[in-house]
Amino acid sequence: MTIDIVLELKGHTLLLASHSPRRRELLEGLGVPFRVVSVEADETYPASLTAGEIPLYIARAKARAYEERLQDKELLLTADTIVWCDNAMLGKPKDEEDARKMLRQLSGKTHQVYTAVCLTWKADEEIRCEEFVDTTDVTFKDLTDEEIDYYVETFRPLDKAGAYGIQEWIGYIGVTGIKGCYFNVMGLPLQPLYAALTQVI
Amino acid sequence: MTIDIVLELKGHTLLLASHSPRRRELLEGLGVPFRVVSVEADETYPASLTAGEIPLYIARAKARAYEERLQDKELLLTADTIVWCDNAMLGKPKDEEDARKMLRQLSGKTHQVYTAVCLTWKADEEIRCEEFVDTTDVTFKDLTDEEIDYYVETFRPLDKAGAYGIQEWIGYIGVTGIKGCYFNVMGLPLQPLYAALTQVI
Repeated sequence: MTIDIVLELKGHTLLLASHSPRRRELLEGLGVPFRVVSVEADETYPASLTAGEIPLYIARAKARAYEERLQDKELLLTADTIVWCDNAMLGKPKDEEDARKMLRQLSGKTHQVYTAVCLTWKADEEIRCEEFVDTTDVTFKDLTDEEIDYYVETFRPLDKAGAYGIQEWIGYIGVTGIKGCYFNVMGLPLQPLYAALTQVI
Repeated sequence: MTIDIVLELKGHTLLLASHSPRRRELLEGLGVPFRVVSVEADETYPASLTAGEIPLYIARAKARAYEERLQDKELLLTADTIVWCDNAMLGKPKDEEDARKMLRQLSGKTHQVYTAVCLTWKADEEIRCEEFVDTTDVTFKDLTDEEIDYYVETFRPLDKAGAYGIQEWIGYIGVTGIKGCYFNVMGLPLQPLYAALTQVI
């Protein structure tokens, strides 16, 4: 299932540099053919960065780590997602106790999810880049200790920034509402990505 | 996968009166065991009703159509979802041309999705009911004729109010953002439903 206006990409092949199965599924939903490539980037970032600057820095680092391998007529997609709460970044939890701590912090308040996307390609022997950051506000009800324990033990969200997946049980029972793009919270802001894909190159 | 605090329902069996496979999937995500029952209700409503009053009227009619069969220790869940745009209800499209017309109407603006939920049970030989309506604002970008044609021909959204599914291609490429519960747009506002289930009876 593809649509001409996107599919064309002026003859470019889309490369997704991400290990995330969720990003892969979401990108498949757009109907644009793509290939997954592997990239290992240093994900440390300057302590001076805040909020959306952090995933943008990391998405750029991922792009730079692949740049040398980029061929003509290839369009590289790198992305990074973070959870931002109480003026600090929540990364992936170290262990189950850390996951519980993060969920207790998110409980009963609104936090932000930022995803940065970089599209990188070569034109006239030069590297070109189009990038954007998408933000979604996510509001959790007051979570009980029982709900947090159940979720952490059953779903083990150790691979997830902020220790939750909005598309999992804790998202069903705990998220009272969002403001912005739902798919951004899952790791890939599809509508802005689609808009960028139809315009770049 | 169940959680005690919800599962209990004070020994009641949850009955989902809905033909919608999407509602079934969403309810499964809550981790509460339930049984699907069939109900045929007259879905006409007084012309004086507007916005959220319409699905509430229909969800109540569905509950009434089952009431006689309701046994002790059963908890009946009925629901109805409508799309509300330009001060009018968009129902299911009559045909593909009608679907195109609806999507052209939704294009480039914000509309509302209302889902009404009724929980009905018997206590002391009397019928008790707990009900609520959940609203989500959904904003579409300007959709092109090519995008509308592609979606309608490929996904044939004739079974969907407003002629779209947010969890389908048109939702990925077209929805710039929502305000409220994402699952409400799919047909079942999970968080308010969970809150009601932990409190009723």
